Amino acid sequence: MAKQSTIKAAVFDAYGTVFDVHSVIELAERFFPGQGKGLSQMWRSKQLEYMFLRSLMGRYVPHDENTEAALVYCCRQLGIACDAERRQQLMAAYLHLRPFPDAIAALDALSGYRRAILSVGTRPMLEEMTTYAGVRQKFDELLSVDDVAVYKPHPDTYRLVTDRLDVSRSEVAFVTSNYFDVAGAKAFGFNVFWINRSNAVPDELGLLPDVTLDRLTGLADAIRRFALPPPA
Amino acid sequence: MAKQSTIKAAVFDAYGTVFDVHSVIELAERFFPGQGKGLSQMWRSKQLEYMFLRSLMGRYVPHDENTEAALVYCCRQLGIACDAERRQQLMAAYLHLRPFPDAIAALDALSGYRRAILSVGTRPMLEEMTTYAGVRQKFDELLSVDDVAVYKPHPDTYRLVTDRLDVSRSEVAFVTSNYFDVAGAKAFGFNVFWINRSNAVPDELGLLPDVTLDRLTGLADAIRRFALPPPA
Repeated sequence: MAKQSTIKAAVFDAYGTVFDVHSVIELAERFFPGQGKGLSQMWRSKQLEYMFLRSLMGRYVPHDENTEAALVYCCRQLGIACDAERRQQLMAAYLHLRPFPDAIAALDALSGYRRAILSVGTRPMLEEMTTYAGVRQKFDELLSVDDVAVYKPHPDTYRLVTDRLDVSRSEVAFVTSNYFDVAGAKAFGFNVFWINRSNAVPDELGLLPDVTLDRLTGLADAIRRFALPPPA
Repeated sequence: MAKQSTIKAAVFDAYGTVFDVHSVIELAERFFPGQGKGLSQMWRSKQLEYMFLRSLMGRYVPHDENTEAALVYCCRQLGIACDAERRQQLMAAYLHLRPFPDAIAALDALSGYRRAILSVGTRPMLEEMTTYAGVRQKFDELLSVDDVAVYKPHPDTYRLVTDRLDVSRSEVAFVTSNYFDVAGAKAFGFNVFWINRSNAVPDELGLLPDVTLDRLTGLADAIRRFALPPPA
C-alpha cells in the first residue's frame, strides 16, 4: 500500500533552525579577537554535551543555566578571561537572535497548518526570543523540554508535541537543522524535514530524514508534496 | 562527624584510563598521512556523541558497532576514502591497545582490593583486550554496559558494580580519566579518582572528583590515604 500522510502541524526546532546563532559568534569575536570563533564552536559543542550528559544522569538543569555552565567551562579551558559582565552580555545575545532570512516566508506559507516550536530553551527564553524577533504570533505553541526536565533526543520531549497539539505522530512535519534532533524525531515517529544548511553528511545512527532541504525556502511546498495522495 | 570510608573495590574505566588509545591514532596517521590525527579526534568525539544519543533515544547498539559507525561518519564527513580493509584494521587496533606504562604497577599495588573494569566495551572486546595485553588476571571482574544496554553515564551502568561485586557505593574507589565518567560515577555515589592525564579543567556539571591524580602512579597510596580513619 502506498503511503499517504495528512500533515496537520509543522513543528520547528528553534536554535539553528529558525534562529541564527551567528550574532553570538560575532559578539564573542568582538570581545575576544582571534579567539571568538574557537570559543563559540567549543561552547556549542559543550552545550550539547552537557544537555546529553545531564539527561543521562537524571540531573537536568534549565537551558540558560546549562548554556552558561558550558561557557564558563570553555573560557577556563581556553584560558580566556571572561568577566561577569561579558558573560552576561553573551547570554543576553542568546535571547535576541535573528531569524534566518528564509524563516519568515516559510512560516507565512505554512499559515494553514498549526505551527509550533519544540525547543530545548525554557518557555521564558522562547517567549523573549520570538517576541523580540517579531515572530511570536506566527506560532500557536511554544513547547519547551523544560516541562519534562530532560533534553532532546529523549522521546519524552517529542511526546510534548502529540500531547499538547493533540495530533498523531504521522500528522507532524518536524523541521530541524540539528541531526541529533532529526534522529530523535524520526525515532519517535514524526515525518522529518532536515534543513541541512552546512551540507553535512547524515550521522550514522540508522535514522534518516524523510526530506532534506538546504534551507527553509520551499518548505511549505515540500510538506504539501509529501502529503499528496499517491497517483491512482 | 568526620568521614570514614572502607574501600573494598577498585573499579577502573578501560579506554583512556588503563588502556592507551594512542596506537589507533598512529595507525590512522599511517593510513592517512596528515589527516590521521584530525580523524582520530573527530572519531573519538563522534563515538561519545553516538553513545549518548543512542542511550537517550533508547536505541543502544554494542560498542564495536557504535565505534565503527562513528568511523564511517567521520571518513565521509572529512572526505577520507577508507576501504573495508583499512576500516577493519582500525577496528582491530581498538582491540589490541597497550596499557599505559603506569597501569601495571598501580594494579599490582592494589592486589589487596577487589579489582574490576567497568567499560562501555562489550565483554568479548574486554576479554580480548586484557588477554592480549597480558593483564586479564589482574582483574576479578570485567563488567560491560552491554549487560544493561545503555551507556555511561546512565546510573544503570554503575549499578553493575554494586550488583556484581556485592559492595556498597561508598566501598568503591572508581578510577577514570574521562570526565563524563567522573560525573556519572560521582552522581551515583562512588568515591571518584580522576586521572587527569591532559591537565584538563573539570567540567561544569556540579560534580567533582574526590581525588585528582595526573596518572595512575600513586593511586594505591591515594586510595589508602582516602580510607584512613580521621585523626582522633
